[in-house]
Amino acid sequence: MTSTQSENGRMADPNYLATRSRSVPRRMILGPGPSSASPRVLRAMSQPIIGYLDPAFFEILEDVQSMLSRVFLTSQTTMTVAGAGSAGMEAGLSSLLERGDKAIICVNGFFCERQILMCERLGVEVVRVDAEYGRTVDPQLLEDALKANPDTKLVSAIHAETSAGVLQDIATLSGLAHDHGALFMTDVVTSLAGTSVEFDAWEVDYAYGGSQKCLAAPPGISPVAVSDRALEHVRNRKTLPSSWYLDLSLIANYWGPDHVHHHTTPVSMIYGLREALVLVEEEGLETRWLRHEKVAGALRAGLAALGLDSPVDPEHRLNQLTVVTLPEGVDDAELRSALLNEYSIEVGRGLGQFAGKVIRVGLMGESCVPANVFALLNALERILPRLGYEVPQGEAVAAASMTLADDPSPVAVV
Amino acid sequence: MTSTQSENGRMADPNYLATRSRSVPRRMILGPGPSSASPRVLRAMSQPIIGYLDPAFFEILEDVQSMLSRVFLTSQTTMTVAGAGSAGMEAGLSSLLERGDKAIICVNGFFCERQILMCERLGVEVVRVDAEYGRTVDPQLLEDALKANPDTKLVSAIHAETSAGVLQDIATLSGLAHDHGALFMTDVVTSLAGTSVEFDAWEVDYAYGGSQKCLAAPPGISPVAVSDRALEHVRNRKTLPSSWYLDLSLIANYWGPDHVHHHTTPVSMIYGLREALVLVEEEGLETRWLRHEKVAGALRAGLAALGLDSPVDPEHRLNQLTVVTLPEGVDDAELRSALLNEYSIEVGRGLGQFAGKVIRVGLMGESCVPANVFALLNALERILPRLGYEVPQGEAVAAASMTLADDPSPVAVV
Repeated sequence: MTSTQSENGRMADPNYLATRSRSVPRRMILGPGPSSASPRVLRAMSQPIIGYLDPAFFEILEDVQSMLSRVFLTSQTTMTVAGAGSAGMEAGLSSLLERGDKAIICVNGFFCERQILMCERLGVEVVRVDAEYGRTVDPQLLEDALKANPDTKLVSAIHAETSAGVLQDIATLSGLAHDHGALFMTDVVTSLAGTSVEFDAWEVDYAYGGSQKCLAAPPGISPVAVSDRALEHVRNRKTLPSSWYLDLSLIANYWGPDHVHHHTTPVSMIYGLREALVLVEEEGLETRWLRHEKVAGALRAGLAALGLDSPVDPEHRLNQLTVVTLPEGVDDAELRSALLNEYSIEVGRGLGQFAGKVIRVGLMGESCVPANVFALLNALERILPRLGYEVPQGEAVAAASMTLADDPSPVAVV
Repeated sequence: MTSTQSENGRMADPNYLATRSRSVPRRMILGPGPSSASPRVLRAMSQPIIGYLDPAFFEILEDVQSMLSRVFLTSQTTMTVAGAGSAGMEAGLSSLLERGDKAIICVNGFFCERQILMCERLGVEVVRVDAEYGRTVDPQLLEDALKANPDTKLVSAIHAETSAGVLQDIATLSGLAHDHGALFMTDVVTSLAGTSVEFDAWEVDYAYGGSQKCLAAPPGISPVAVSDRALEHVRNRKTLPSSWYLDLSLIANYWGPDHVHHHTTPVSMIYGLREALVLVEEEGLETRWLRHEKVAGALRAGLAALGLDSPVDPEHRLNQLTVVTLPEGVDDAELRSALLNEYSIEVGRGLGQFAGKVIRVGLMGESCVPANVFALLNALERILPRLGYEVPQGEAVAAASMTLADDPSPVAVV
């Protein structure tokens, strides 16, 4: 280091060491994700690092795979993509599609639009099948699109659209894709471990999840399932995928019995995911689904008592993510800011077609407990009148409480 | 869930809950990475999750950026790519290069070959400038290649080649690239915070590091620095980068003052990186560089006492990663297996041209302490004779100890 350069360094910088401590505020995070991580997951992540080619680490990978198989309900390949859910999304699109291929994207929310952005960058021709935000995609429209585009290589639809709060019937859409010779992929980032995801029964070829939602682990890793057919497809492409990092066949080679070196595995995140999956097994997968249903039901009862509605088709509402229509005159940013600053509660804003019109409330994994519902409803009862929307005091919390009182068992805090 | 599908689920699976506990073995990880994570970093990672759009989280991002600036010695943009070091590599290549562009890749090891694999997938024309493993790239050869290829858009060279154990003079190579109008990128995965990295002084346009080496954090995030010129280049491309997830301009928009939503940030990894950077500041950047130099010196003295050589040019040996030539007749896998199973010490195997001929010993970050050098030398003294290579007993440890005794101050355990 020369003397000139050292001016950028320690001696010349008066702020040196100034940033030593900063405490993370306690938040009740009820946004679209991340949700809270289980303390047990965080403790598991603090175990010492071992090498990603250590035989002892391979045993941990096998645990993760076997437990992921039970969460995805599949006997085919499970593994993780080393990045956010969007990395799982891009791994699927870039591995399953080649430049010049055609894909049908079912669009009923913001994250579907992200898939289209990715396809365009990959040189993939996109056919859209649209639904309004808050609605599911009409299978008839998908069938029409498949008939009009017999050269379609892949159909993609999102199981649980976090921007729109909608749950779709994936089995039907997947069946249509296969009837027309296309592969089928789905996004289960928000549904995995919180709602039935049946990879094999639905004949899905690729599904990607998130660690930070119903699995109650921190964000940064995307658990995925890949069908044998999809893996074969990736291995027999005419051209290699443009992304080396997100190539599903290379990732599968590392997770496979030969453990072929690819990139450095995020060891601590794998420890955390393993513990998160153990927690799912302890609770029981179906019990966990039921918990998400019951707690969401309590929230809905409370919101109804406040006179608040949702733009989402009642038949297809997501338990993990409730979209709430803002009453006339209530400002989105003011409401979210009051929740955060006065009650330390984070909720999500509207995206895309919903921007400025709704708030989005996530109840996922560790965050999906009655206490959080009560706290949020209580805060809304206090804040909304101040923002010009009068609500009865105490009724929302009572309504939520009555819903839960009917059946206390599935909503126990884990 | 239908009754048929539930056979895949909890009730029908006799192994349910079988995978509850598994302890991580204690290892001394002296491979090419990951290295051990500091307990303080692991503790920081166990803080509660908050949202990646929470104003309190933005303050943490600012801390990380300001401390990364001091580690990269830059006043330009610093941020992280949410993936392994290879994600940082691909983010650079895919953002800075367009399909049909020409790049010169300086090749002196396995990770340079990885850059070429990535370029080929991106449709980039590659010109190689080769050096043997263990040697640095001849600047004259780079200059010749630049003259022969005046349409070169980018030159890439690896600062610290982990496969080959070589440190290169980046300032010279970068200067040549700029003299010929090309951008310059470098890999500092193994050098960042362990050896002088001077982003601004060397006029680098893009550098990517790893969290899991000299920074003593777990793997899974890649700290990067981007020059203003490079960011402008990405923003003015004719076509969008094929990767949405690894697009440096989108990542920069999230880390910038507007915090534009991109993907979900790996919150816990950012907590960990922040604490890792605080540890660097507490130790002092130059002191940390010196620690890596001193501890590597002790290892070299011990290896010399064992009569073991290195294939790496003595003038350019990396402190963080020492390549050791295996004596005639000593089997690579047997040696590594004895180290792991009898002493719980992990070292790396040879890659590429070095496969089967060497072991690679990493001394990085938290793993870079005298105790680890003594333990490894002691184990080698015991194991090597059994594998057919006689060595004097006790001399290697003594030699290492004598080296350190000369100047105890910089090698204190932090």
